[in-house]
Amino acid sequence: LTGFGLDHLPFGVFAPRGEEPRIGVRYEDGVLDLAAAGLGDVFRASTLNAFLAQGRSAWEEARDGARRLLERGGAELVPIASAEVSLPVAVADYVDFNSSLEHATNTGRIFRPGDPPLLPNWRWLPVAYHGRAGTVVVSGTPVRRPSGQWREPGAAEPVFAPTRRLDIELELAAVVGLGSERGRRVASGAFRDHVFGVVLLNDWSARDVQAWESRPLGPFLAKSFATSIAAWVTPLAALEPYHVQGPSQEPPALDHLRVDEPWALDLELEIELNGAVVSRPHARGLYWTMPQQLAHATSNGAGLATGDLLATGTISGFEPDRRGSLLELSWNGAEPLELPDGSRRTFLEDGDEVVLRGRTPDGRVELAEVRGRVEPRA
Amino acid sequence: LTGFGLDHLPFGVFAPRGEEPRIGVRYEDGVLDLAAAGLGDVFRASTLNAFLAQGRSAWEEARDGARRLLERGGAELVPIASAEVSLPVAVADYVDFNSSLEHATNTGRIFRPGDPPLLPNWRWLPVAYHGRAGTVVVSGTPVRRPSGQWREPGAAEPVFAPTRRLDIELELAAVVGLGSERGRRVASGAFRDHVFGVVLLNDWSARDVQAWESRPLGPFLAKSFATSIAAWVTPLAALEPYHVQGPSQEPPALDHLRVDEPWALDLELEIELNGAVVSRPHARGLYWTMPQQLAHATSNGAGLATGDLLATGTISGFEPDRRGSLLELSWNGAEPLELPDGSRRTFLEDGDEVVLRGRTPDGRVELAEVRGRVEPRA
Repeated sequence: LTGFGLDHLPFGVFAPRGEEPRIGVRYEDGVLDLAAAGLGDVFRASTLNAFLAQGRSAWEEARDGARRLLERGGAELVPIASAEVSLPVAVADYVDFNSSLEHATNTGRIFRPGDPPLLPNWRWLPVAYHGRAGTVVVSGTPVRRPSGQWREPGAAEPVFAPTRRLDIELELAAVVGLGSERGRRVASGAFRDHVFGVVLLNDWSARDVQAWESRPLGPFLAKSFATSIAAWVTPLAALEPYHVQGPSQEPPALDHLRVDEPWALDLELEIELNGAVVSRPHARGLYWTMPQQLAHATSNGAGLATGDLLATGTISGFEPDRRGSLLELSWNGAEPLELPDGSRRTFLEDGDEVVLRGRTPDGRVELAEVRGRVEPRA
Repeated sequence: LTGFGLDHLPFGVFAPRGEEPRIGVRYEDGVLDLAAAGLGDVFRASTLNAFLAQGRSAWEEARDGARRLLERGGAELVPIASAEVSLPVAVADYVDFNSSLEHATNTGRIFRPGDPPLLPNWRWLPVAYHGRAGTVVVSGTPVRRPSGQWREPGAAEPVFAPTRRLDIELELAAVVGLGSERGRRVASGAFRDHVFGVVLLNDWSARDVQAWESRPLGPFLAKSFATSIAAWVTPLAALEPYHVQGPSQEPPALDHLRVDEPWALDLELEIELNGAVVSRPHARGLYWTMPQQLAHATSNGAGLATGDLLATGTISGFEPDRRGSLLELSWNGAEPLELPDGSRRTFLEDGDEVVLRGRTPDGRVELAEVRGRVEPRA
């Protein structure tokens, strides 16, 4: 089982060497060129957006069409090694939630020791903010260490310098296909009509900058330099067999955030740092589910647009080896990680390479990886 | 003087009744159709974006071309009354700063009584967050009262209901024309190369929702339901004669935020509520200038994109009649405004109409208005 068989069929944008980008479906070690295979001219495009805007029946038709061609055999595939991928979606708005009870608790303990770790609103709504859509990049794009402003504890004045606390956040993100009209709420039950699929996402973060800049309006430059997503979008349909019951919510969600069917995703995730797996979070434990995130984001009548990303926020478990960020894994630098090569890490060093991975427990669906290497400040 | 003469020439998108949208320049009570006038096919478009992406020399050439045609006389103009305007720019990312010392001080006093009103970071950097680009609307678009979640003081549980504290924020926004490469800072001195012009902006806000949701990641649904901008973008070039020295900055800005020339804009602003002017803020007093905002937003290497909006945040003066939001004008509801019709307001009621205006002291440049009426929750 490779995780890229007929049960998966993720969509992305690729260019065979020297040719124009077009839309393909990844199958095993190859890519099916959908327009060339006769599945429609909407696939002769450099992003998925026009296809995504067609809605759910078009998504199902395309997936079925690709599956039939691949089952029949004989379809010509572009070897994945010679297909240069690009950002699959022109990102409209990027919303990042804070849906993991364990992550929220860990960060509360780290940043507000002595106070209750969860803020009063946390169990009532999936807290979120808007990130920068224009700096979302595809897996494989190098990430240059950002400079920023922060003040060391006890210092009188801040400095402007390359961040010393460059971090990652392991997340999943829902990719919105069908938009919605401004002024109308989208119920959680309409999730499958609006969301095409999911990707792994790395929300790179500069923790020193974040601590200094975030009051009172939240994170800005600490996050806006780069956010990496996978090159291949896993259709929701491929994950239907992997819905499980998530943690029970106490207090129960208010009516507009209620979801009746199980919507936790049974996905085993991994953070690899310089070739070593340093954490194994699990998506199943996320407190707030993606349909609740969608219902919340539109509960004020905000319209959705094709290409919106709704990310879960860092996915952490309570066990030390299931935390989704270096902030938590090193407990804000106090407990360095030991890597197999004998080196230690609190936050990322120049040249470090991070890979995020995820798969269903049976291995039938392997989420496309998110890879990124840290480049030094020029 | 109408404020829309040859010294101004703002750009926007309009459609004569029943025809396709195209780009025009507003002149007095008419609109010059730029493509029809022979100034280029880039103006045969439903947004300014492609034109803006051409950069500064193209902007100057277009403005000069329009001025020459209008000076010569005889150019056919579409009457403004029969020109239906639409959103001038496809908004990429929308960043909202918090640049007014007076607004930051007022909100600090209101929300953190007893504490120093300014947070430690405020004088060191222009605090900002990303707003929702997809819900930016053009002046004239009705705004439906959003529902949201909040908890009344002392209550055990939150409610989900139409906001009771619907507010406005008077702001200016810079419209980015030329993008920048990811990984490179844009110095404040390059402001004129990247920013095409400015618009008035109303950052509608639900204060009850904002108070409940904003920790720790900042405002989200309290702002994301609608943001209104003017239909006509005033080119920076039209405001060159109105640069004045802003407030001195103490402590001095760090090197990467330093600006040597005067960049405060001498613009008299107005908030009109149901036909009565309720506030007269002045843009001249803004602590952080637009070039500083731009330098800050890119100081971590975040790229700019054509269509980015960089908004100032609420523009307030200390005098009670120069505050830029109802939150401040009514001091969080404690001091209702008396309107000329005998009614009182703390926050907005259904049916209320707000108009934002602005002009240079000599009246030669009148910023296009931002108008919006509050519709009841359906």
